[in-house]
Amino acid sequence: MKPEFETAPALHVSEWINADKHITLADLRGRVVVLHAFQMLCPGCVSHGIPQAINIYNAFSRNDVVVLGLHTVFEHHAVMGPEALKVFMREYRIPFPVGVDDAVSGSDIPMTMQAYGWRGTPSMVVIDRNGAVRLNHFGMLDDLRVGALLGQLVTEQASPPPAKSF
Amino acid sequence: MKPEFETAPALHVSEWINADKHITLADLRGRVVVLHAFQMLCPGCVSHGIPQAINIYNAFSRNDVVVLGLHTVFEHHAVMGPEALKVFMREYRIPFPVGVDDAVSGSDIPMTMQAYGWRGTPSMVVIDRNGAVRLNHFGMLDDLRVGALLGQLVTEQASPPPAKSF
Amino acid sequence: MKPEFETAPALHVSEWINADKHITLADLRGRVVVLHAFQMLCPGCVSHGIPQAINIYNAFSRNDVVVLGLHTVFEHHAVMGPEALKVFMREYRIPFPVGVDDAVSGSDIPMTMQAYGWRGTPSMVVIDRNGAVRLNHFGMLDDLRVGALLGQLVTEQASPPPAKSF
Amino acid sequence: MKPEFETAPALHVSEWINADKHITLADLRGRVVVLHAFQMLCPGCVSHGIPQAINIYNAFSRNDVVVLGLHTVFEHHAVMGPEALKVFMREYRIPFPVGVDDAVSGSDIPMTMQAYGWRGTPSMVVIDRNGAVRLNHFGMLDDLRVGALLGQLVTEQASPPPAKSF
Repeated sequence: MKPEFETAPALHVSEWINADKHITLADLRGRVVVLHAFQMLCPGCVSHGIPQAINIYNAFSRNDVVVLGLHTVFEHHAVMGPEALKVFMREYRIPFPVGVDDAVSGSDIPMTMQAYGWRGTPSMVVIDRNGAVRLNHFGMLDDLRVGALLGQLVTEQASPPPAKSF
Repeated sequence: MKPEFETAPALHVSEWINADKHITLADLRGRVVVLHAFQMLCPGCVSHGIPQAINIYNAFSRNDVVVLGLHTVFEHHAVMGPEALKVFMREYRIPFPVGVDDAVSGSDIPMTMQAYGWRGTPSMVVIDRNGAVRLNHFGMLDDLRVGALLGQLVTEQASPPPAKSF
Repeated sequence: MKPEFETAPALHVSEWINADKHITLADLRGRVVVLHAFQMLCPGCVSHGIPQAINIYNAFSRNDVVVLGLHTVFEHHAVMGPEALKVFMREYRIPFPVGVDDAVSGSDIPMTMQAYGWRGTPSMVVIDRNGAVRLNHFGMLDDLRVGALLGQLVTEQASPPPAKSF
Repeated sequence: MKPEFETAPALHVSEWINADKHITLADLRGRVVVLHAFQMLCPGCVSHGIPQAINIYNAFSRNDVVVLGLHTVFEHHAVMGPEALKVFMREYRIPFPVGVDDAVSGSDIPMTMQAYGWRGTPSMVVIDRNGAVRLNHFGMLDDLRVGALLGQLVTEQASPPPAKSF
């Protein structure tokens, strides 16, 4: 018996950059999803998290692993808006879609950040082919261990959808 | 149907260091084996291959992944003998067993190196739970991709041994 | 006879951050000045130029070497204004004064950048105790060679001011 | 008045590698000398000290700065003899002359190591144009600070030799 894992909370995104259309986790069911939460002026994101996310994007087939960025601004909102983010993404050549985490009225902490309980940035979430959270980590992660988790999850089969009766 | 992979050639080792007893691949059947072939005076081995092998050793359970070094001396034999290797292993704190690749009379190339066809050092072989070669690589390898392969192989089940009839 | 070096053009700065008062090169005559021109969303500045400038700041006595940053925005002006720069400097813990290079009406290229002829960011200028430009470099520089130049310039004596007659 | 610095003790070398003839510090008077003491199986020497010494060798004119290696074996003598050292130097492409520190009968510590009082490897000594020790350091050194010291010493003039009377 496998342990049960929690279903990944939905993403709350006001705007997607580098994407043709709005992206939902439900659309990605059947593939492994790496969700990289960052802020453009967070040094650890720039030096470690984003390069690692780009490495993951380049190392796996898009049919197996989808990398999504999430701009989870929880401080200095005025200078990290979507226009600044777009320049940042162009300068740092971020090749994957990035969503802007949706603001919560009266709070500095945006909505997806609240749903996942992130303590800061960078944070990384890995979601399996069945939509369950298998890793939810704040801080740095070793490439070898991230690779091992992804290699394992890629190998796992998606469960067949439950039978429907009418 | 899985593709068929070749069964890993046997190791030819004149002496094991950091090991209680002689090690064979047959003994390790059921576990993933990472075989790291190096020479103690090879700069790429020292700067890249050996640190990566130590990382792998630290990242996985010994029940899943076994790391073995192999000292495959094919040049400058006089100064890379077992006594020099023992000092090297102590100074570089190599925690896994290392075998001395067996000399072939009349050849500079030792026996296991010939069997695996390595073109130089560092070389890395990854063997699955069923004893089949899944990677045989000369040169540098990215941590993320090595991790992904190992994560995948750890997940695979060992085949049941063939039924025996009496 | 020493070669003649050109006197450093004046800085044109609309605002200093991390400084008690407006700074001019004339005020710093007698000390070596390292001028580090950057943009906050320039990847090479963030990964290489700024860490090197901070290293220089920490390696030398303030009586010998003064490090100044200059935010020379020549693109994406809307998202790299002074408020964004202040957040960037706090997040990246930049310990030295940074001036905002003054805009030129009708041009994307700010005034000091034009005066020094920089082709982009990061650029580094080293000015000797007598106010002469000894290095004006666009791109990366090796720590050892930068150190050697600074070690040399620190050793040089400032010329006595010219005699004045009344 | 400059502080007085101690005259560098003579080198005791049984054999020079990468050199046309025996080298003495007296021969190098008038130039800055960087003496890099290492052991070929010392990890900190291989990862840090030797690359830094090669950088110094490449950054300065041979008329200003001479880099010398010294193989100061104080442990595991049997496996770090001159033949092993020659292979090591070829594999690591060490471009400067390296002397073998002379053994002292009845002691593990070779003669030059005793004269300079090194506590281990890597150690670096910097000698000025007048033959005086300006740095004698065990362990790692930052490129920027080493560069600064060398830049300063290169700038200093050699003292004229004392007048001789007949």
